[in-house]
Amino acid sequence: MSVTDEERLARATISLVTEPGDVRCLGLTRELGGVQFLEVLRDHADLRAELTAAAGRLAGVQPERILERAHRQGIRFVVPGDDEWPSSLDDLGGAGALQARGEVPVGLWVRGPLRLDRLAPSLAVVGSRSSTTYGDQLAGDVAAVVGRAGRPVVSGAAYGIDYAAHRGALSADAPTLAVLACGVDRVYPEAHRRLLEHLATHHAVVSESPPGAAPFRIRFLARNRLIAALSRGTVVVEAALRSGALHTAAWADRLHRVVMGTPGLVTSAASEGVHELLRSGGATLVTRGEDVLELLGHSGEHLSEPARGPEGPRDRLTVRARQVLDAVPAASPAPSSSVALVAGLGVSEVDRLLHGLAADGFVERYPAGWRLGERAR
Amino acid sequence: MSVTDEERLARATISLVTEPGDVRCLGLTRELGGVQFLEVLRDHADLRAELTAAAGRLAGVQPERILERAHRQGIRFVVPGDDEWPSSLDDLGGAGALQARGEVPVGLWVRGPLRLDRLAPSLAVVGSRSSTTYGDQLAGDVAAVVGRAGRPVVSGAAYGIDYAAHRGALSADAPTLAVLACGVDRVYPEAHRRLLEHLATHHAVVSESPPGAAPFRIRFLARNRLIAALSRGTVVVEAALRSGALHTAAWADRLHRVVMGTPGLVTSAASEGVHELLRSGGATLVTRGEDVLELLGHSGEHLSEPARGPEGPRDRLTVRARQVLDAVPAASPAPSSSVALVAGLGVSEVDRLLHGLAADGFVERYPAGWRLGERAR
Repeated sequence: MSVTDEERLARATISLVTEPGDVRCLGLTRELGGVQFLEVLRDHADLRAELTAAAGRLAGVQPERILERAHRQGIRFVVPGDDEWPSSLDDLGGAGALQARGEVPVGLWVRGPLRLDRLAPSLAVVGSRSSTTYGDQLAGDVAAVVGRAGRPVVSGAAYGIDYAAHRGALSADAPTLAVLACGVDRVYPEAHRRLLEHLATHHAVVSESPPGAAPFRIRFLARNRLIAALSRGTVVVEAALRSGALHTAAWADRLHRVVMGTPGLVTSAASEGVHELLRSGGATLVTRGEDVLELLGHSGEHLSEPARGPEGPRDRLTVRARQVLDAVPAASPAPSSSVALVAGLGVSEVDRLLHGLAADGFVERYPAGWRLGERAR
Repeated sequence: MSVTDEERLARATISLVTEPGDVRCLGLTRELGGVQFLEVLRDHADLRAELTAAAGRLAGVQPERILERAHRQGIRFVVPGDDEWPSSLDDLGGAGALQARGEVPVGLWVRGPLRLDRLAPSLAVVGSRSSTTYGDQLAGDVAAVVGRAGRPVVSGAAYGIDYAAHRGALSADAPTLAVLACGVDRVYPEAHRRLLEHLATHHAVVSESPPGAAPFRIRFLARNRLIAALSRGTVVVEAALRSGALHTAAWADRLHRVVMGTPGLVTSAASEGVHELLRSGGATLVTRGEDVLELLGHSGEHLSEPARGPEGPRDRLTVRARQVLDAVPAASPAPSSSVALVAGLGVSEVDRLLHGLAADGFVERYPAGWRLGERAR
């Protein structure tokens, strides 16, 4: 392991004294390293005002104790330089400089056996907490198909789409990861205690905030960028117009990830945000896991068959027979001489073909001539 | 009027002896004019094989009688050069050379008071005959909004979306035009007799085929290009994977018109074709008439407000108050000193702001400190 104990301890300290996504502190840590940034925080009397809050907290924290207790709870602190560090997070360096929250986290607190460096081609499934049954079903189906193809699923732990996505992945026995806005030892929302415990035991639960941290709103905002960065693509399944899922989608776009959205009824408020995203060209429309796999894959990988109608009985006809069929009226019958004129073929050939088509139910014969049969409608 | 009687008669003749969208005959008529093309058909013993079918029919037709009878029935034959000729159809010249059907029609048979040269910024609304109630409602709403903005609607006369589109336009007292695959004196389908009579009396019914022509399949295929060409944009509302509406959309794209599609449930077969069109980038997603108007308009015209969530109570808070609110935990209460640390503000200011937020229901006070109130969730 190439990370020194001193650097890990420094980064744990920074994790304890800064808020997730603090662009200044995290940016400086990325540039200077944890040890040196801590020195800046500790030693410089002429601290820039932006850093005073973090500096003020230094005296109160006990990083050794936190790391030790985390270790006892089965929580590890993964930092840049560790084998397990997911390099996709490095894309956050300098990205979104104008955003309130951003930058590479100083480290991730992880609970569960799933290794973060094995996530590479994963899919983020995000969406509304107030989802519909339709959205839940769709999110679960997409996660299951993607999971079955061997790709991990990444989401939050909220009600609605997040929950449905994890359930879908679990139903496919696929790895699935929850990124939390609170500490990984906490349960939020309480109703998802069993899900979170299952993920922490068999998969992984991750947070930028240290153990014990409560779910503040800015931590959700900071968390969204991690969901986007950890995944190769993000699919938004139902999102109202101001949904946090759209924030995640915006981060995915900023990080040059694939952004996808699933459609719904235009009358459903739960789909309005996704429709707006699709309309503005900010996402590609997908309707099923196969579409997602195709967009996630490297070129040539997982090329899904474009959805096609079932082959119709017409498709099995010869070109000539189809030419004749196209010239048969749908309503009032016409004599074969008329059909021949419209088809641009000889009458005797047309007559022969019409009898064949009639035998197969494509056309029907009447005293006045021929018209389309049931099978050709 | 700059069109000679001889040219009009020649074109009526060609309309009687050729099928709609016959690329060779129509292309030659466009290049040579009707009179000269008829001469080619009549006089050249070494006729190219492709033209023999049309030449063979010349002896049997009576264009003067057809024109006269049409006139008595209130049907006019509008040809290029007439004031009423819709110049948008000229875009079909040479377009789609590889298609089975194409080219500028030699003329249009028209029944009804609506003048075709007044259609310019019209909208084609097309879609499935087997539409759902949802699709019908949506097509009707879109047509009504667009119609109310003074734009004519163009469609076919089939069951489903076509019918719903005309109904929507009529409900808005807007001009609406049906383009038929059969003669404008015929009724197909029979169930739409009242609609077609209403349109022929108050709006217009149009066909490339002469009066009396029956609705053959190739005439539907040829008809689709006219719907696309007559309109500035085409919106597809519900279309199964092999729907003829997608054929119209492809023509609209080929003619550089605006192509739009409305989303639906991914589980609805009636939406599969539209979703595929949207997914492939062949159309822009629209959810309402206002979206359509924006896309149809010249730049700056009809810019629809992007759909936005209603302004939330948060939006009316000061920047500082929001900064504090963002730092209040959603679950277990935290003391104001913790909130101040997270917010990066002084404790006394935070305390003051928290009391104000509590008065407005954004936060709640507990013995252990503060957490988010109902209003902030």
